[in-house]
Amino acid sequence: MPHISLGNDAPGIVSLFAYQPETAKPMIDLVDRMLCGPNSLSRGERELIGAYVSSLNDCSFCTDAHAAFAAAQLPEGMALVDQVRADLETAPLSPKMHALLRIAGAVQRGGKNVRDEDVAAARAADATDVEIHDTVLIAAMFCLANRYVDGLATVLPDDPATYAQMAEMIVSVGYSAVSGQPAAQSA
Amino acid sequence: MPHISLGNDAPGIVSLFAYQPETAKPMIDLVDRMLCGPNSLSRGERELIGAYVSSLNDCSFCTDAHAAFAAAQLPEGMALVDQVRADLETAPLSPKMHALLRIAGAVQRGGKNVRDEDVAAARAADATDVEIHDTVLIAAMFCLANRYVDGLATVLPDDPATYAQMAEMIVSVGYSAVSGQPAAQSA
Repeated sequence: MPHISLGNDAPGIVSLFAYQPETAKPMIDLVDRMLCGPNSLSRGERELIGAYVSSLNDCSFCTDAHAAFAAAQLPEGMALVDQVRADLETAPLSPKMHALLRIAGAVQRGGKNVRDEDVAAARAADATDVEIHDTVLIAAMFCLANRYVDGLATVLPDDPATYAQMAEMIVSVGYSAVSGQPAAQSA
Repeated sequence: MPHISLGNDAPGIVSLFAYQPETAKPMIDLVDRMLCGPNSLSRGERELIGAYVSSLNDCSFCTDAHAAFAAAQLPEGMALVDQVRADLETAPLSPKMHALLRIAGAVQRGGKNVRDEDVAAARAADATDVEIHDTVLIAAMFCLANRYVDGLATVLPDDPATYAQMAEMIVSVGYSAVSGQPAAQSA
């Protein structure tokens, strides 16, 4: 049961967006731009960063939601997401995604944990400055979302199939689907 | 020296906002709404939450900036900010602000650290549901900002007086001052 009365029974962050639409709008705009906007990292790769950080933060709703969104957009599907969650080091990723996910994990522990050698390793694996920036920002963004979702004790969906249904909407429409309003970048 | 080339020598998050204005916009809108918008918590109280969480995250730029912004807007000034940073439990705060800052500290450690009894204590001290919500969201927001600022190793201002100069702008104009563009709520 949520810590406060949210006036709706939607799960996870969806209930918070419905509770306070005026703060939902900029959050959805940011998430839509970072996870669905034009980027040299694929949408599946960016969702994988989100699912990984959410799992490190032990946030069930965000982990399962973004694992489903990643799986729906990665050629390797849920098998790869599960391998990353189980053990990043042995997961069959490109050297670049390995290096970027290590940076994301460092950000999850705290910004100062990102070391010069982590960034050098990402560069050696052909990550661009923008990709390094976006990895840090996506990881930081999930550190907000995970805390918002669990800090108010939002509920999980009754039916786990909800995540796959949400994935279909996110893949086709983007995050504006969560708000029912078009996000800035879709406008 | 920042981990990536930001194309400017502004300090902290200001350099990141200049680097990627399209993601800065929704972040500034969110921060402006949460820290400067209409609220039953004063602007000084909300900045104090931000400074406290930033200090727990050991983020020098955000701690010193938001300490200055809080001090400029709290009747007790920097003395209270320093006492909160030194020891929350003995700081001379209202029971409500004590309870809300304890919730903010729990969010900083991770969303699941906010316990039913923390929320009950805030309610017993007359915190409303919206104030509890906004405390969680402000704390979560700083967990993003602190990681973004330190995860990319942004620089500190050469002159510590910069924070007081920024405070004057933030107090009079709001966070749109950081972007040079009006934030959504000021429009």
